[in-house]
Amino acid sequence: MLSASICTIGDEILIGQIVDTNSAAITRALGSLGIRCTRMISLPDDRAEIISLLKSELSAHDIVISTGGLGPTKDDITKDALAELSGSRKYRKDEAQEQIIYNILHSRGLEVLECNLRQALVPERCEVILNRKGTAPIMVFRFPKERFGHPATLYALPGVPFEATGALPDVLEDIRTHHTLEHITHRTLMTYGLAESALAQRIAAWEDTLPADMHLAYLPNPLTGVRLRLSVYGGTQEDAERRISGQIQALKPILGQDLYSEQDDTLEAVIGRLLREKELSLSVAESCTGGEIAHLITTVSGSSDYFLGSVTSYAVAVKEKVLGVPADTIDRFGIVSAEVAAAMAEGVRRLTGSGVSLATTGWAEGEGDGHEPGGTVWVGVAGPQGTRCRKFNYKNDRKRNIERFSASALDFLRRYIIEL
Amino acid sequence: MLSASICTIGDEILIGQIVDTNSAAITRALGSLGIRCTRMISLPDDRAEIISLLKSELSAHDIVISTGGLGPTKDDITKDALAELSGSRKYRKDEAQEQIIYNILHSRGLEVLECNLRQALVPERCEVILNRKGTAPIMVFRFPKERFGHPATLYALPGVPFEATGALPDVLEDIRTHHTLEHITHRTLMTYGLAESALAQRIAAWEDTLPADMHLAYLPNPLTGVRLRLSVYGGTQEDAERRISGQIQALKPILGQDLYSEQDDTLEAVIGRLLREKELSLSVAESCTGGEIAHLITTVSGSSDYFLGSVTSYAVAVKEKVLGVPADTIDRFGIVSAEVAAAMAEGVRRLTGSGVSLATTGWAEGEGDGHEPGGTVWVGVAGPQGTRCRKFNYKNDRKRNIERFSASALDFLRRYIIEL
Repeated sequence: MLSASICTIGDEILIGQIVDTNSAAITRALGSLGIRCTRMISLPDDRAEIISLLKSELSAHDIVISTGGLGPTKDDITKDALAELSGSRKYRKDEAQEQIIYNILHSRGLEVLECNLRQALVPERCEVILNRKGTAPIMVFRFPKERFGHPATLYALPGVPFEATGALPDVLEDIRTHHTLEHITHRTLMTYGLAESALAQRIAAWEDTLPADMHLAYLPNPLTGVRLRLSVYGGTQEDAERRISGQIQALKPILGQDLYSEQDDTLEAVIGRLLREKELSLSVAESCTGGEIAHLITTVSGSSDYFLGSVTSYAVAVKEKVLGVPADTIDRFGIVSAEVAAAMAEGVRRLTGSGVSLATTGWAEGEGDGHEPGGTVWVGVAGPQGTRCRKFNYKNDRKRNIERFSASALDFLRRYIIEL
Repeated sequence: MLSASICTIGDEILIGQIVDTNSAAITRALGSLGIRCTRMISLPDDRAEIISLLKSELSAHDIVISTGGLGPTKDDITKDALAELSGSRKYRKDEAQEQIIYNILHSRGLEVLECNLRQALVPERCEVILNRKGTAPIMVFRFPKERFGHPATLYALPGVPFEATGALPDVLEDIRTHHTLEHITHRTLMTYGLAESALAQRIAAWEDTLPADMHLAYLPNPLTGVRLRLSVYGGTQEDAERRISGQIQALKPILGQDLYSEQDDTLEAVIGRLLREKELSLSVAESCTGGEIAHLITTVSGSSDYFLGSVTSYAVAVKEKVLGVPADTIDRFGIVSAEVAAAMAEGVRRLTGSGVSLATTGWAEGEGDGHEPGGTVWVGVAGPQGTRCRKFNYKNDRKRNIERFSASALDFLRRYIIEL
């Protein structure tokens, strides 16, 4: 099995100004090819340190992927270190990347500066994978066996997460072209509503019957639920897929509605498909979630086909005036209550004329108001089957609570729509 | 200056199942003492690998902080590795931590298992800092000069972020007690509206005059703009802060309104402060940004003091009916136009009675409609100084365009409010 090391370059990570999310994205991508990442390192913008560490990582691994240190400003010295490491004496201009630099800057209405064009220059001993999402090209250095005791490849990616992850498909393709990889077949199932431990208990009997060469991984994420990944290493893809499908057929009745997708998916994408299928439109009324639910729904391409709009009613007056929640209901039951969630859902459905609607009212932080404690959200769904409400409670910080409220609300909506 | 290395132990990071947030929190804490973290490493749950890497990190650094690998389940082998590394032949029980284990499990209504009590056992050659938030104690190993060529200390923290960060104050206190510390002073400035390269060019003359011991770093982020960080290592804090302040005073007129904060900040937080200062309330009408702007505004704690609410008018009918945008305006100028952005901003301001309002209408993806191409957003702000509009254009994917539209809209609002 090929081994890899991921090196992130940049003082901003070492001083804790930003959290490194690239390494996790890269190792997941490598994992999909069956390549095992056995080390991740963050190192400073220091030329000597970069050279020395990359050398030691290249000696210990087949593949090294670096990110960062490739911006246009002068605190970036990575490229220079890479030139020395690869024994490049000169830089050459990559014309295709230069064209991309022009295109990107022009499309943003920005002047093309000399420091921008310098980004198209690469050490002569590297191959370039074009960066279509940014200005710094991806540089590929292939070292022969003699150099580090085994053939080793270094991929230098930019640090901007959007660009680094954007380059991954091309990097994986390059790895596939240059190495013989054992085939791995993965299938992902998405569940929501069960904690990892409860899920493990529910499916324990099924899991015990899995053949030895089939691996099950639990990948919990509070915002998308627990992802289950079934993998088979080796064999033909056709055979592996047939065997995995058989296991999934056996698992589906055990999971029931807690299974929301048989591919890597989000709740909002699944809801979009369900709404299309049932020819329903959707509107949303948010209080504590403050726009996050509408945001999630509209990240799905084509959501304008079914999403009519939303009202974020942060102020009580907006709840009353725009959504028509009776002042009396708020006074009697409290602003965070089933009754207010129901009135908000019904109000936004009336306002927009949507087929179904979803509403949230809760306390994202603090002590609550005596009716309900902080961390509580009431979710309401209104639609052809009437109005339903449910309460959820989390004990995280403000930001995380908002995210979990939103995910739980979307899942509650999903279960409502399924039954229509 | 003392140097530190942070080592995270655990397969879950190396396979990308979780993102390492502990390292950023730890290095920020160390930075506050003027201790410079020069390496972060993630290593697998492998006894030999743990011992070998900790040895090499202890040889190269004064302080090594490890997190992870200390849970009650059997895949955790870190403690055993630490016993060998420290030459401990026996384990001893830490009575105070054992008491905490009992208290924590009882308070959660859980049975105290043998594997839980084993967590109170530590290698004999370590000192214990109590973990009050979890069951695994913090272990401190002090190595004499003879062992690694200099005095070195290893702090082994649990991996759960809540416990690791919870232990930091006690770890810092221990470091302060055992070392004489040099001071490090950072100041961060937030800019928006200039690309990194244009910013570098604008401030090049100022940057050239910086003294040699003052370091400037550019940290670009499309959603918060380019962050500038000025650092001084050594000297007294008072002197360093005075000198940095002097430089910032010289820089401010060069940056003008493109500088939005003199601390690590977000546009939405700055807008919140400006609104409080000027005693203005805010409402938002979103089309293409789909709730993201309201979401960003409400991630700020206390935003309910000035944020009244928002309408996401995805469907044309919602624009007309809820926001009162005249059908004729849409027909004449197109849905993505200055006129519609203005009418949306004025409509939501009227609907909610807010002091100022912000509106967006754009194409997050696709080809546009002949009036404006995909990637275009029109932003409108309405308030006491009348209504103003501006167009922005980006060429990213749907999700990224939504984020950039939102950031640009917030910045446009900020500039409007400043001038009130």
